Amino acid sequence: MSAGSTATPIRAIDVIRKKRDGAELTLAEIESLVNGYTRGEIPDYQVSAWLMATLLKGMTRAETAALTDTMLRSGEVLDFSNMTACKVDKHSTGGVGDKTSLVLAPVAAAGGLIVPMISGRGLGHTGGTLDKLEAIPGFKVGIPVAQFRKILEQIGCCMIGQTAEIAPADRKLYALRDVTGTVESPFLICASIMSKKLAEGVDGLVLDVKTGSGAFMKQEKDSVYLAELMVETGERMGKQMAALITDMDQPLGRYVGNALEVVEVLEVLRGGGPDDLRDLCHELAAWMFLLGKRVSSIAEGKRLSAELISSGAALDRFRKMIELQGGDPQVVDDPGRLPKAAHTLEVASQKSGFVSAIQCERAGTACVILGGGRERKEDSVDPAVGFVLQKKVGDQVASGESLCTIHYNSEPLAQRAKNLLLESFQISATAPAQKRPLVHRVITKSGERN
Amino acid sequence: MSAGSTATPIRAIDVIRKKRDGAELTLAEIESLVNGYTRGEIPDYQVSAWLMATLLKGMTRAETAALTDTMLRSGEVLDFSNMTACKVDKHSTGGVGDKTSLVLAPVAAAGGLIVPMISGRGLGHTGGTLDKLEAIPGFKVGIPVAQFRKILEQIGCCMIGQTAEIAPADRKLYALRDVTGTVESPFLICASIMSKKLAEGVDGLVLDVKTGSGAFMKQEKDSVYLAELMVETGERMGKQMAALITDMDQPLGRYVGNALEVVEVLEVLRGGGPDDLRDLCHELAAWMFLLGKRVSSIAEGKRLSAELISSGAALDRFRKMIELQGGDPQVVDDPGRLPKAAHTLEVASQKSGFVSAIQCERAGTACVILGGGRERKEDSVDPAVGFVLQKKVGDQVASGESLCTIHYNSEPLAQRAKNLLLESFQISATAPAQKRPLVHRVITKSGERN
Repeated sequence: MSAGSTATPIRAIDVIRKKRDGAELTLAEIESLVNGYTRGEIPDYQVSAWLMATLLKGMTRAETAALTDTMLRSGEVLDFSNMTACKVDKHSTGGVGDKTSLVLAPVAAAGGLIVPMISGRGLGHTGGTLDKLEAIPGFKVGIPVAQFRKILEQIGCCMIGQTAEIAPADRKLYALRDVTGTVESPFLICASIMSKKLAEGVDGLVLDVKTGSGAFMKQEKDSVYLAELMVETGERMGKQMAALITDMDQPLGRYVGNALEVVEVLEVLRGGGPDDLRDLCHELAAWMFLLGKRVSSIAEGKRLSAELISSGAALDRFRKMIELQGGDPQVVDDPGRLPKAAHTLEVASQKSGFVSAIQCERAGTACVILGGGRERKEDSVDPAVGFVLQKKVGDQVASGESLCTIHYNSEPLAQRAKNLLLESFQISATAPAQKRPLVHRVITKSGERN
Repeated sequence: MSAGSTATPIRAIDVIRKKRDGAELTLAEIESLVNGYTRGEIPDYQVSAWLMATLLKGMTRAETAALTDTMLRSGEVLDFSNMTACKVDKHSTGGVGDKTSLVLAPVAAAGGLIVPMISGRGLGHTGGTLDKLEAIPGFKVGIPVAQFRKILEQIGCCMIGQTAEIAPADRKLYALRDVTGTVESPFLICASIMSKKLAEGVDGLVLDVKTGSGAFMKQEKDSVYLAELMVETGERMGKQMAALITDMDQPLGRYVGNALEVVEVLEVLRGGGPDDLRDLCHELAAWMFLLGKRVSSIAEGKRLSAELISSGAALDRFRKMIELQGGDPQVVDDPGRLPKAAHTLEVASQKSGFVSAIQCERAGTACVILGGGRERKEDSVDPAVGFVLQKKVGDQVASGESLCTIHYNSEPLAQRAKNLLLESFQISATAPAQKRPLVHRVITKSGERN
């Protein structure tokens, strides 16, 4: 299967030209290019030309699967087949205030699934699961695979960062895409996400593909296209797949910022929290249980999720995971132990009316400006800063009333964030006619599960 | 005008994205990218992504002119304004057996023009003017600009290779295009050709854009597109421009190979030579005289060209140029002094009929295989080898009669070349109905000169 075993050597220039001219590449051609690049034999400048040709000319489903498979096999593929329970993970394309992973891992594990979750950091206006976890004092996301396996065997869930061994081709390609304007290709996005997620050795994967002003893909049709591509690619590789197109037209929940989001996660795990966040967690958990064959319908899955929360089993699982990953488990019962910003500032509405929209990318950027996210990969984050929404879309607000509360450590940054947040809130005289649904659509290949 | 003088720095990634999305780049953006790359500040991998986006998304006329201008100004622009006569050059997009430059430079100079010709080497199946000149013993193409100027002042023509000072951006970009599948863009081809040619400090330029099986552009519409692009770009930059779309569906003339082509050049300069080569030389010379304001019509230009040849003035000018450039001027009167291959081999027709086509790229490749051209830039050439066509398209041939004579120094290479030449000749039972015209079309912006 490796490029080395083919009789005639495949030249990178010919692969580039073929894609440039819109033809379909073979598995051998994709392997030759990607493996040659990963080994350092094919230079950056040839691969970036190929990436641009791929972005502009597209890929067939077979090419996308071949690329995903090649990237997956570029490194270690975890094997948890010694654990009999189904291994199921969830992946989100990223948004603002999206902290569902921290709820779902313990819920799914408490419900009998194995959740070997490998997550990423925030970049741009979106937050990242690893940054949120690291807001918990002592929590370690960079733990070796042997320990990852041990924790999974003990409690069924463990949440870590990408290791050097997993999909090295993706790491190298992603860094190159980032500086060559070739990030925004559904085919390359699909291969990047799926190669990493399938390297986790899961049986099933639930995709949460966001749509709206805070999503990477603002148009629903683009989100649907990517979702279908990922579902089909996963199914071609023998995985149980489902994708939910969910709303990211305003922040999810009320808390945005790393430590603040952990506080809200604890609320949900205690049976509280805001409706949108709680409902989405139940929805996603239900799909995880369905793909993992723990339930036979979504309704049953939601009931199981609610029970695991009301019984305290999920919260208990979260506490154990924090402890096993080196974190302070007492934060679960005393969120006051989480990092806290020195100051707060209310963002008062300048007029009366109804919140008709919250421009979500702008709101996310406000959190980055406060120091809670990254503009560049090498930036460090301040876990304490962020904001708490006092009003969400549809809420009535009086002039002078607080729209949100900023938690900050730097006065000038707080002022910049305040201006951005004020801009992001749109106030209208009348209440918005229709509420956007939380789940826009569910995509499975056959559609029979919906 | 330089990128350094703009207030906000332009980021390469933004320029790449803008072109990827099909938008028109500003002069400042193009300057920033090209100058940054030439200075070594922008890496190969970003420029190759931009090149691929440019190839696939195209450029407007304004962008093409801006790119040409930026590449032109990346190095030295020669200034021969101290010489009052018009400076006019000719550029060909390359073909097989195309030795017109060696005829045109002395003809035009003998007719009162200044011809500061900077040429290239052969690559792929096409020959190069420098390789042909170097077949003349002692001839030097790598002479300094000061001497170039002196020779021009003395005799009006001098033929050299590209210097390190001329359009360094093009040299760097061309090397990158060659390995990233981004050669075949009319916009990039136009900027590459025009930046080098306009750096010669000419007032006018005649373009010989080839079309047919031996041309870089096989389809006439592609040749016309490129020709129009170059004419308009040159005129935007204040130059007198004309482009002739000429036939390259079989080799031009009868001799292919470096020293062999010099022999045929001498035949033409003595008033002989094959019709197609001689006619094209008169045609191109006439356009050079017209752009250089030496004549007021093409008919007058052709008469002048013919007179300069019949009087011996052009041959005399060629002899002087060879002498001033360090070559053996006696080759002019005794072509036997040129390098000669050790052996010849007849390629006999395997059937009787008429030559209906000579697949010209294949024929050119036969010369490369013999050692007369380059497969890679770093290859050296054997000046003596090549072939002489005994039959051209339309000629009748009997089975066993020679189609062409191979001049070779290596028996195995001669056999390979023979097979390729046999393949390239197409013999039909009847004579081809129509002869392809020599000049397919003439392109000037206004069209008024045609």
